[in-house]
Amino acid sequence: MLINEIVIIGAGNVAVNMAVAFRNSGKKILCIFSRNAEKARKLAEMVDAPYTGQLDKLPRNADLFLIAVNDNAIDEVAGKLSDVSGIVAHTSGSVSISVFENKIPDYGVLYPLMHLSTEKLMDFAHIPLCIEANTPGNYTAISELAGSVSHSVYPVTSAERKMLHLAAVFASNFTNLNYIISEEILKKNNLSFDILHPIIVETANKILRNSPTELQTGPAVREDYQVIGEHEKLLKDFPYYQKMYKLFTEIIIQKKKNNEL
Amino acid sequence: MLINEIVIIGAGNVAVNMAVAFRNSGKKILCIFSRNAEKARKLAEMVDAPYTGQLDKLPRNADLFLIAVNDNAIDEVAGKLSDVSGIVAHTSGSVSISVFENKIPDYGVLYPLMHLSTEKLMDFAHIPLCIEANTPGNYTAISELAGSVSHSVYPVTSAERKMLHLAAVFASNFTNLNYIISEEILKKNNLSFDILHPIIVETANKILRNSPTELQTGPAVREDYQVIGEHEKLLKDFPYYQKMYKLFTEIIIQKKKNNEL
Repeated sequence: MLINEIVIIGAGNVAVNMAVAFRNSGKKILCIFSRNAEKARKLAEMVDAPYTGQLDKLPRNADLFLIAVNDNAIDEVAGKLSDVSGIVAHTSGSVSISVFENKIPDYGVLYPLMHLSTEKLMDFAHIPLCIEANTPGNYTAISELAGSVSHSVYPVTSAERKMLHLAAVFASNFTNLNYIISEEILKKNNLSFDILHPIIVETANKILRNSPTELQTGPAVREDYQVIGEHEKLLKDFPYYQKMYKLFTEIIIQKKKNNEL
Repeated sequence: MLINEIVIIGAGNVAVNMAVAFRNSGKKILCIFSRNAEKARKLAEMVDAPYTGQLDKLPRNADLFLIAVNDNAIDEVAGKLSDVSGIVAHTSGSVSISVFENKIPDYGVLYPLMHLSTEKLMDFAHIPLCIEANTPGNYTAISELAGSVSHSVYPVTSAERKMLHLAAVFASNFTNLNYIISEEILKKNNLSFDILHPIIVETANKILRNSPTELQTGPAVREDYQVIGEHEKLLKDFPYYQKMYKLFTEIIIQKKKNNEL
Protein backbone atom coordinates (compact mmCIF):
# COMPACT_ATOMS: atom_id res chain seq x y z
CA MET A 1 0.00 0.00 0.00
CA LEU A 2 1.24 3.50 -0.78
CA ILE A 3 0.45 6.35 1.58
CA ASN A 4 -1.07 9.26 -0.30
CA GLU A 5 -3.73 10.79 1.91
CA ILE A 6 -2.64 12.00 5.33
CA VAL A 7 -4.45 13.42 8.34
CA ILE A 8 -2.21 15.53 10.58
CA ILE A 9 -3.02 15.65 14.29
CA GLY A 10 -1.19 18.57 15.86
CA ALA A 11 -0.02 21.94 14.55
CA GLY A 12 3.24 22.43 16.44
CA ASN A 13 6.84 22.28 15.26
CA VAL A 14 6.87 18.63 14.17
CA ALA A 15 3.38 18.71 12.66
CA VAL A 16 4.13 21.81 10.56
CA ASN A 17 7.47 20.55 9.27
CA MET A 18 6.14 17.10 8.40
CA ALA A 19 2.90 18.31 6.83
CA VAL A 20 4.79 20.73 4.59
CA ALA A 21 7.45 18.12 3.66
CA PHE A 22 4.81 15.53 2.72
CA ARG A 23 2.72 18.06 0.84
CA ASN A 24 5.83 19.16 -1.10
CA SER A 25 6.53 15.54 -2.04
CA GLY A 26 3.09 15.31 -3.65
CA LYS A 27 1.00 13.79 -0.86
CA LYS A 28 -2.48 15.07 -0.06
CA ILE A 29 -3.10 16.47 3.42
CA LEU A 30 -6.74 15.55 4.12
CA CYS A 31 -7.23 17.55 7.30
CA ILE A 32 -5.41 19.25 10.19
CA PHE A 33 -6.51 18.88 13.79
CA SER A 34 -5.42 21.16 16.61
CA ARG A 35 -7.13 22.48 19.71
CA ASN A 36 -5.42 25.75 18.91
CA ALA A 37 -7.64 27.06 16.09
CA GLU A 38 -5.20 29.76 15.00
CA LYS A 39 -2.33 27.29 14.64
CA ALA A 40 -4.60 24.79 12.86
CA ARG A 41 -5.82 27.45 10.42
CA LYS A 42 -2.28 28.62 9.67
CA LEU A 43 -0.96 25.12 8.95
CA ALA A 44 -4.11 24.20 6.97
CA GLU A 45 -3.51 27.20 4.75
CA MET A 46 0.14 26.21 4.19
CA VAL A 47 -0.80 22.75 2.96
CA ASP A 48 -4.11 23.60 1.29
CA ALA A 49 -6.24 21.49 3.62
CA PRO A 50 -9.31 21.92 5.85
CA TYR A 51 -8.88 21.97 9.62
CA THR A 52 -10.86 21.19 12.73
CA GLY A 53 -10.61 21.63 16.48
CA GLN A 54 -12.57 18.45 17.26
CA LEU A 55 -11.01 15.01 16.91
CA ASP A 56 -14.36 13.38 16.07
CA LYS A 57 -14.82 15.72 13.10
CA LEU A 58 -11.69 14.32 11.41
CA PRO A 59 -12.19 12.07 8.36
CA ARG A 60 -12.34 8.41 9.48
CA ASN A 61 -10.62 7.15 6.30
CA ALA A 62 -7.06 8.06 5.36
CA ASP A 63 -3.84 6.22 4.49
CA LEU A 64 -2.12 7.71 7.54
CA PHE A 65 -3.18 9.50 10.72
CA LEU A 66 0.01 11.19 11.93
CA ILE A 67 -0.06 12.12 15.62
CA ALA A 68 2.41 14.96 16.23
CA VAL A 69 1.34 16.15 19.69
CA ASN A 70 3.04 16.32 23.10
CA ASP A 71 4.23 12.94 24.40
CA ASN A 72 1.76 12.92 27.27
CA ALA A 73 -1.23 13.48 24.94
CA ILE A 74 -0.49 10.59 22.53
CA ASP A 75 -2.25 7.97 24.64
CA GLU A 76 -5.44 10.01 24.85
CA VAL A 77 -5.48 10.88 21.14
CA ALA A 78 -4.87 7.24 20.19
CA GLY A 79 -7.87 6.24 22.31
CA LYS A 80 -10.08 8.49 20.21
CA LEU A 81 -8.91 7.06 16.88
CA SER A 82 -9.96 3.43 17.47
CA ASP A 83 -12.67 3.62 14.80
CA VAL A 84 -10.51 4.97 11.95
CA SER A 85 -9.43 3.05 8.88
CA GLY A 86 -5.75 3.65 8.06
CA ILE A 87 -2.36 3.49 9.75
CA VAL A 88 -2.03 5.55 12.94
CA ALA A 89 1.54 6.67 13.76
CA HIS A 90 3.16 8.99 16.28
CA THR A 91 6.39 10.98 15.93
CA SER A 92 7.85 10.81 19.45
CA GLY A 93 11.36 9.80 20.49
CA SER A 94 10.35 8.55 23.92
CA VAL A 95 6.91 6.95 23.63
CA SER A 96 6.80 3.19 22.95
CA ILE A 97 4.87 1.84 19.99
CA SER A 98 2.88 -0.16 22.56
CA VAL A 99 0.83 2.97 23.29
CA PHE A 100 -1.34 1.84 20.35
CA GLU A 101 -1.82 -1.79 21.46
CA ASN A 102 -5.42 -2.90 21.92
CA LYS A 103 -6.61 0.47 20.63
CA ILE A 104 -5.71 0.55 16.94
CA PRO A 105 -5.36 -2.25 14.35
CA ASP A 106 -2.67 -0.68 12.12
CA TYR A 107 0.01 1.47 13.67
CA GLY A 108 3.59 2.60 13.73
CA VAL A 109 6.10 5.33 14.55
CA LEU A 110 7.82 7.91 12.35
CA TYR A 111 10.37 9.75 14.50
CA PRO A 112 12.47 12.55 12.98
CA LEU A 113 15.83 12.79 14.77
CA MET A 114 16.13 16.57 14.42
CA HIS A 115 15.07 19.79 16.11
CA LEU A 116 12.14 21.04 14.09
CA SER A 117 10.91 24.59 14.40
CA THR A 118 8.15 26.52 12.66
CA GLU A 119 10.43 29.54 12.45
CA LYS A 120 12.65 27.84 9.89
CA LEU A 121 11.16 24.86 8.02
CA MET A 122 13.73 22.12 7.42
CA ASP A 123 14.60 20.37 4.19
CA PHE A 124 13.93 16.73 5.15
CA ALA A 125 16.43 15.26 2.65
CA HIS A 126 19.09 14.63 5.33
CA ILE A 127 16.90 14.27 8.41
CA PRO A 128 17.12 10.72 9.84
CA LEU A 129 13.63 9.20 10.05
CA CYS A 130 13.27 6.27 12.45
CA ILE A 131 10.50 3.85 11.53
CA GLU A 132 8.65 1.18 13.44
CA ALA A 133 5.33 -0.59 12.71
CA ASN A 134 3.17 -3.43 13.99
CA THR A 135 3.24 -5.40 10.70
CA PRO A 136 5.71 -5.72 7.80
CA GLY A 137 3.09 -4.21 5.48
CA ASN A 138 2.62 -1.15 7.68
CA TYR A 139 6.40 -0.86 8.04
CA THR A 140 6.79 -0.81 4.25
CA ALA A 141 4.07 1.79 3.84
CA ILE A 142 5.53 4.20 6.44
CA SER A 143 9.05 3.55 5.19
CA GLU A 144 8.09 4.40 1.59
CA LEU A 145 6.46 7.61 2.76
CA ALA A 146 9.59 8.49 4.77
CA GLY A 147 11.76 7.69 1.73
CA SER A 148 9.75 10.14 -0.37
CA VAL A 149 11.13 13.04 1.70
CA SER A 150 14.43 11.76 3.21
CA HIS A 151 17.48 9.77 2.12
CA SER A 152 17.99 8.56 5.71
CA VAL A 153 15.34 6.07 6.75
CA TYR A 154 16.16 3.63 9.57
CA PRO A 155 14.27 0.69 11.07
CA VAL A 156 14.37 1.37 14.82
CA THR A 157 12.61 -0.50 17.65
CA SER A 158 11.00 1.37 20.56
CA ALA A 159 13.89 0.36 22.88
CA GLU A 160 16.45 1.57 20.31
CA ARG A 161 14.53 4.78 19.75
CA LYS A 162 14.72 5.58 23.47
CA MET A 163 18.49 5.07 23.35
CA LEU A 164 18.76 7.32 20.30
CA HIS A 165 16.72 9.96 22.08
CA LEU A 166 18.94 9.72 25.16
CA ALA A 167 22.09 9.95 23.03
CA ALA A 168 20.64 13.00 21.25
CA VAL A 169 20.02 14.65 24.64
CA PHE A 170 23.78 14.45 25.31
CA ALA A 171 24.89 15.31 21.78
CA SER A 172 22.45 18.17 21.23
CA ASN A 173 20.48 19.40 24.29
CA PHE A 174 23.40 19.19 26.73
CA THR A 175 25.80 20.52 24.10
CA ASN A 176 23.56 23.57 23.81
CA LEU A 177 23.92 24.02 27.57
CA ASN A 178 27.70 24.01 27.06
CA TYR A 179 27.21 26.82 24.55
CA ILE A 180 25.05 28.70 27.09
CA ILE A 181 27.70 28.32 29.79
CA SER A 182 30.46 29.58 27.52
CA GLU A 183 28.31 32.52 26.40
CA GLU A 184 27.63 33.39 30.05
CA ILE A 185 31.32 33.23 31.00
CA LEU A 186 32.18 35.54 28.10
CA LYS A 187 29.32 37.98 28.77
CA LYS A 188 30.38 38.37 32.41
CA ASN A 189 33.76 39.44 31.05
CA ASN A 190 32.35 41.73 28.34
CA LEU A 191 33.52 39.41 25.58
CA SER A 192 31.44 38.48 22.55
CA PHE A 193 30.20 34.90 22.10
CA ASP A 194 30.65 35.38 18.33
CA ILE A 195 34.37 34.76 18.71
CA LEU A 196 33.57 31.10 19.58
CA HIS A 197 31.34 30.51 16.54
CA PRO A 198 34.09 29.16 14.27
CA ILE A 199 35.45 26.64 16.82
CA ILE A 200 31.93 25.46 17.71
CA VAL A 201 31.03 24.77 14.08
CA GLU A 202 34.42 23.14 13.39
CA THR A 203 34.06 20.89 16.48
CA ALA A 204 30.71 19.64 15.17
CA ASN A 205 31.85 19.22 11.57
CA LYS A 206 34.90 17.17 12.58
CA ILE A 207 32.73 14.24 13.71
CA LEU A 208 31.57 13.78 10.11
CA ARG A 209 35.09 12.51 9.31
CA ASN A 210 36.29 10.97 12.59
CA SER A 211 35.03 9.29 15.73
CA PRO A 212 34.92 11.87 18.56
CA THR A 213 37.22 9.54 20.56
CA GLU A 214 39.99 10.50 18.08
CA LEU A 215 39.26 14.21 18.43
CA GLN A 216 39.45 14.93 22.17
CA THR A 217 41.68 17.93 22.88
CA GLY A 218 42.06 20.39 25.75
CA PRO A 219 43.74 20.56 29.16
CA ALA A 220 42.00 17.45 30.57
CA VAL A 221 43.22 15.03 27.90
CA ARG A 222 46.71 16.57 28.13
CA GLU A 223 46.46 16.15 31.92
CA ASP A 224 47.61 19.76 32.18
CA TYR A 225 46.84 20.16 35.89
CA GLN A 226 48.14 23.72 36.01
CA VAL A 227 45.58 24.98 33.48
CA ILE A 228 42.87 22.78 35.05
CA GLY A 229 43.60 24.36 38.45
CA GLU A 230 43.48 27.87 36.98
CA HIS A 231 40.18 27.16 35.22
CA GLU A 232 38.62 25.84 38.42
CA LYS A 233 39.70 29.05 40.17
CA LEU A 234 38.26 31.21 37.36
CA LEU A 235 34.93 29.41 37.93
CA LYS A 236 34.79 30.21 41.66
CA ASP A 237 31.78 32.52 41.10
CA PHE A 238 29.96 29.80 39.11
CA PRO A 239 29.71 26.85 41.58
CA TYR A 240 27.51 24.78 39.21
CA TYR A 241 29.89 25.25 36.29
CA GLN A 242 32.88 24.48 38.49
CA LYS A 243 31.20 21.21 39.49
CA MET A 244 30.56 20.46 35.83
CA TYR A 245 34.14 21.35 34.87
CA LYS A 246 35.44 18.91 37.49
CA LEU A 247 33.12 16.13 36.37
CA PHE A 248 33.94 16.55 32.64
CA THR A 249 37.64 16.67 33.47
CA GLU A 250 37.46 13.59 35.71
CA ILE A 251 35.71 11.58 32.98
CA ILE A 252 38.18 12.64 30.28
CA ILE A 253 41.21 11.79 32.46
CA GLN A 254 39.63 8.43 33.36
CA LYS A 255 39.01 7.64 29.69
CA LYS A 256 42.59 8.57 28.84
CA LYS A 257 43.86 6.21 31.57
CA ASN A 258 41.60 3.45 30.15
CA ASN A 259 43.08 4.05 26.69
CA GLU A 260 39.64 4.97 25.36
CA LEU A 261 40.97 8.27 23.96
CA MET B 1 56.66 48.38 10.98
CA LEU B 2 55.42 45.59 8.73
CA ILE B 3 56.24 42.00 9.60
CA ASN B 4 57.74 40.23 6.61
CA GLU B 5 60.41 37.88 7.88
CA ILE B 6 59.37 35.30 10.43
CA VAL B 7 61.22 32.70 12.48
CA ILE B 8 59.01 29.80 13.59
CA ILE B 9 59.86 28.06 16.86
CA GLY B 10 58.06 24.73 16.98
CA ALA B 11 56.85 22.29 14.32
CA GLY B 12 53.61 21.00 15.85
CA ASN B 13 49.99 21.63 14.88
CA VAL B 14 49.96 25.39 15.53
CA ALA B 15 53.43 25.99 14.09
CA VAL B 16 52.67 24.15 10.86
CA ASN B 17 49.30 25.81 10.29
CA MET B 18 50.62 29.31 11.03
CA ALA B 19 53.85 28.94 9.05
CA VAL B 20 51.93 27.75 5.99
CA ALA B 21 49.27 30.47 6.33
CA PHE B 22 51.88 33.26 6.61
CA ARG B 23 53.95 31.81 3.78
CA ASN B 24 50.82 31.68 1.59
CA SER B 25 50.11 35.33 2.36
CA GLY B 26 53.54 36.27 0.98
CA LYS B 27 55.66 36.40 4.14
CA LYS B 28 59.14 34.91 4.23
CA ILE B 29 59.80 32.13 6.74
CA LEU B 30 63.45 32.68 7.73
CA CYS B 31 64.00 29.47 9.69
CA ILE B 32 62.19 26.65 11.53
CA PHE B 33 63.33 25.40 14.93
CA SER B 34 62.26 22.09 16.46
CA ARG B 35 64.01 19.56 18.65
CA ASN B 36 62.30 16.96 16.49
CA ALA B 37 64.50 17.05 13.36
CA GLU B 38 62.06 15.10 11.20
CA LYS B 39 59.16 17.45 12.01
CA ALA B 40 61.43 20.49 11.49
CA ARG B 41 62.62 19.20 8.12
CA LYS B 42 59.07 18.45 6.97
CA LEU B 43 57.74 21.91 7.88
CA ALA B 44 60.86 23.62 6.47
CA GLU B 45 60.22 21.91 3.15
CA MET B 46 56.56 23.02 3.12
CA VAL B 47 57.49 26.69 3.55
CA ASP B 48 60.79 26.68 1.65
CA ALA B 49 62.97 27.56 4.66
CA PRO B 50 66.05 26.18 6.43
CA TYR B 51 65.66 24.46 9.78
CA THR B 52 67.68 23.80 12.91
CA GLY B 53 67.46 21.74 16.08
CA GLN B 54 69.43 24.27 18.15
CA LEU B 55 67.87 27.50 19.39
CA ASP B 56 71.22 29.34 19.32
CA LYS B 57 71.64 28.54 15.61
CA LEU B 58 68.50 30.56 14.73
CA PRO B 59 68.95 33.95 13.00
CA ARG B 60 69.10 36.73 15.63
CA ASN B 61 67.37 39.26 13.36
CA ALA B 62 63.79 38.85 12.14
CA ASP B 63 60.56 40.85 12.21
CA LEU B 64 58.89 38.17 14.32
CA PHE B 65 59.97 35.17 16.36
CA LEU B 66 56.81 33.09 16.73
CA ILE B 67 56.91 30.63 19.65
CA ALA B 68 54.45 27.80 18.96
CA VAL B 69 55.56 25.22 21.51
CA ASN B 70 53.89 23.53 24.52
CA ASP B 71 52.70 25.98 27.19
CA ASN B 72 55.21 24.75 29.74
CA ALA B 73 58.18 25.28 27.37
CA ILE B 74 57.42 28.94 26.50
CA ASP B 75 59.18 30.35 29.54
CA GLU B 76 62.39 28.44 28.78
CA VAL B 77 62.37 29.32 25.07
CA ALA B 78 61.77 33.00 25.85
CA GLY B 79 64.79 32.96 28.16
CA LYS B 80 66.98 31.89 25.26
CA LEU B 81 65.78 34.65 22.92
CA SER B 82 66.85 37.64 25.04
CA ASP B 83 69.52 38.67 22.52
CA VAL B 84 67.33 38.70 19.39
CA SER B 85 66.22 41.80 17.49
CA GLY B 86 62.53 41.59 16.54
CA ILE B 87 59.14 40.97 18.16
CA VAL B 88 58.85 37.72 20.12
CA ALA B 89 55.29 36.33 20.39
CA HIS B 90 53.69 33.13 21.65
CA THR B 91 50.46 31.49 20.50
CA SER B 92 49.03 30.06 23.73
CA GLY B 93 45.52 30.50 25.13
CA SER B 94 46.58 30.12 28.76
CA VAL B 95 50.03 31.69 29.18
CA SER B 96 50.13 35.35 30.22
CA ILE B 97 52.03 37.90 28.15
CA SER B 98 54.05 38.54 31.33
CA VAL B 99 56.11 35.43 30.56
CA PHE B 100 58.25 37.75 28.40
CA GLU B 101 58.72 40.52 31.00
CA ASN B 102 62.36 41.32 31.88
CA LYS B 103 63.52 38.89 29.21
CA ILE B 104 62.57 40.45 25.87
CA PRO B 105 62.21 44.12 24.80
CA ASP B 106 59.49 43.68 22.13
CA TYR B 107 56.82 41.06 22.60
CA GLY B 108 53.25 39.98 22.19
CA VAL B 109 50.74 37.17 21.74
CA LEU B 110 48.99 35.80 18.66
CA TYR B 111 46.45 33.20 19.80
CA PRO B 112 44.33 31.34 17.20
CA LEU B 113 41.00 30.32 18.74
CA MET B 114 40.70 27.10 16.76
CA HIS B 115 41.76 23.44 16.84
CA LEU B 116 44.67 23.22 14.46
CA SER B 117 45.91 19.91 13.13
CA THR B 118 48.67 18.96 10.71
CA GLU B 119 46.37 16.34 9.19
CA LYS B 120 44.14 18.99 7.66
CA LEU B 121 45.60 22.48 7.30
CA MET B 122 43.04 25.19 7.98
CA ASP B 123 42.15 28.20 5.88
CA PHE B 124 42.80 31.05 8.33
CA ALA B 125 40.29 33.46 6.77
CA HIS B 126 37.66 32.81 9.47
CA ILE B 127 39.88 31.80 12.39
CA PRO B 128 39.67 34.35 15.24
CA LEU B 129 43.16 35.64 16.06
CA CYS B 130 43.54 37.21 19.50
CA ILE B 131 46.30 39.81 19.71
CA GLU B 132 48.18 41.36 22.62
CA ALA B 133 51.49 43.28 22.70
CA ASN B 134 53.68 45.28 25.08
CA THR B 135 53.57 48.50 23.01
CA PRO B 136 51.07 50.05 20.56
CA GLY B 137 53.68 49.72 17.80
CA ASN B 138 54.14 46.01 18.43
CA TYR B 139 50.37 45.59 18.64
CA THR B 140 49.93 47.22 15.23
CA ALA B 141 52.65 45.07 13.69
CA ILE B 142 51.20 41.77 14.97
CA SER B 143 47.68 42.88 14.17
CA GLU B 144 48.59 43.71 10.56
CA LEU B 145 50.24 40.32 10.17
CA ALA B 146 47.13 38.63 11.60
CA GLY B 147 44.92 40.67 9.25
CA SER B 148 46.90 39.42 6.26
CA VAL B 149 45.55 35.90 6.86
CA SER B 150 42.27 36.35 8.79
CA HIS B 151 39.21 38.61 8.73
CA SER B 152 38.75 38.11 12.50
CA VAL B 153 41.42 39.89 14.51
CA TYR B 154 40.62 40.84 18.13
CA PRO B 155 42.54 42.82 20.75
CA VAL B 156 42.48 40.56 23.82
CA THR B 157 44.26 40.99 27.16
CA SER B 158 45.89 38.04 28.94
CA ALA B 159 43.03 37.92 31.48
CA GLU B 160 40.44 37.95 28.68
CA ARG B 161 42.36 35.32 26.72
CA LYS B 162 42.20 32.96 29.71
CA MET B 163 38.43 33.47 29.86
CA LEU B 164 38.11 32.79 26.13
CA HIS B 165 40.16 29.64 26.55
CA LEU B 166 37.97 28.50 29.45
CA ALA B 167 34.80 29.22 27.45
CA ALA B 168 36.23 27.27 24.50
CA VAL B 169 36.88 24.30 26.81
CA PHE B 170 33.12 24.17 27.52
CA ALA B 171 31.98 24.95 23.98
CA SER B 172 34.42 22.63 22.23
CA ASN B 173 36.40 20.19 24.42
CA PHE B 174 33.49 19.29 26.70
CA THR B 175 31.08 19.25 23.78
CA ASN B 176 33.32 16.65 22.15
CA LEU B 177 32.98 14.58 25.34
CA ASN B 178 29.19 14.81 24.92
CA TYR B 179 29.66 13.38 21.42
CA ILE B 180 31.85 10.60 22.86
CA ILE B 181 29.21 9.74 25.47
CA SER B 182 26.43 9.61 22.89
CA GLU B 183 28.57 7.47 20.58
CA GLU B 184 29.28 5.08 23.46
CA ILE B 185 25.59 4.81 24.41
CA LEU B 186 24.71 4.01 20.80
CA LYS B 187 27.57 1.51 20.30
CA LYS B 188 26.55 -0.44 23.41
CA ASN B 189 23.14 -0.80 21.75
CA ASN B 190 24.52 -1.65 18.29
CA LEU B 191 23.34 1.65 16.84
CA SER B 192 25.40 3.81 14.53
CA PHE B 193 26.63 7.22 15.67
CA ASP B 194 26.15 8.44 12.08
CA ILE B 195 22.43 8.83 12.73
CA LEU B 196 23.25 11.73 15.12
CA HIS B 197 25.46 13.61 12.63
CA PRO B 198 22.69 15.83 11.21
CA ILE B 199 21.35 16.94 14.61
CA ILE B 200 24.89 17.62 15.91
CA VAL B 201 25.76 19.84 12.95
CA GLU B 202 22.37 21.60 13.09
CA THR B 203 22.76 22.26 16.85
CA ALA B 204 26.10 23.96 16.19
CA ASN B 205 24.92 25.92 13.16
CA LYS B 206 21.89 27.30 14.99
CA ILE B 207 24.07 29.44 17.28
CA LEU B 208 25.19 31.45 14.23
CA ARG B 209 21.67 32.92 14.11
CA ASN B 210 20.52 32.86 17.76
CA SER B 211 21.80 33.00 21.30
CA PRO B 212 21.92 29.44 22.69
CA THR B 213 19.66 30.65 25.54
CA GLU B 214 16.86 30.86 22.94
CA LEU B 215 17.59 27.39 21.59
CA GLN B 216 17.44 25.09 24.63
CA THR B 217 15.20 22.07 23.96
CA GLY B 218 14.86 18.60 25.46
CA PRO B 219 13.20 16.95 28.46
CA ALA B 220 14.97 19.12 31.07
CA VAL B 221 13.71 22.48 29.77
CA ARG B 222 10.23 20.96 29.32
CA GLU B 223 10.51 19.69 32.93
CA ASP B 224 9.38 16.33 31.57
CA TYR B 225 10.18 14.34 34.71
CA GLN B 226 8.87 11.08 33.26
CA VAL B 227 11.40 11.08 30.41
CA ILE B 228 14.13 12.38 32.76
CA GLY B 229 13.43 9.45 35.12
CA GLU B 230 13.52 6.95 32.25
CA HIS B 231 16.79 8.38 30.96
CA GLU B 232 18.40 8.14 34.40
CA LYS B 233 17.34 4.49 34.56
CA LEU B 234 18.74 3.79 31.08
CA LEU B 235 22.06 5.16 32.35
CA LYS B 236 22.25 2.80 35.34
CA ASP B 237 25.26 0.99 33.80
CA PHE B 238 27.05 4.33 33.21
CA PRO B 239 27.32 5.88 36.71
CA TYR B 240 29.51 8.77 35.47
CA TYR B 241 27.10 9.65 32.69
CA GLN B 242 24.13 9.35 35.01
CA LYS B 243 25.82 11.86 37.35
CA MET B 244 26.43 14.13 34.38
CA TYR B 245 22.84 13.74 33.16
CA LYS B 246 21.57 14.78 36.60
CA LEU B 247 23.89 17.78 36.79
CA PHE B 248 23.04 19.04 33.28
CA THR B 249 19.33 18.57 34.00
CA GLU B 250 19.54 20.34 37.36
CA ILE B 251 21.28 23.34 35.79
CA ILE B 252 18.78 23.59 32.91
CA ILE B 253 15.78 23.38 35.28
CA GLN B 254 17.38 26.00 37.55
CA LYS B 255 17.97 28.33 34.60
CA LYS B 256 14.38 27.84 33.45
CA LYS B 257 13.13 28.77 36.95
CA ASN B 258 15.39 31.87 36.88
CA ASN B 259 13.87 32.85 33.50
CA GLU B 260 17.29 32.63 31.90
CA LEU B 261 15.95 30.28 29.18
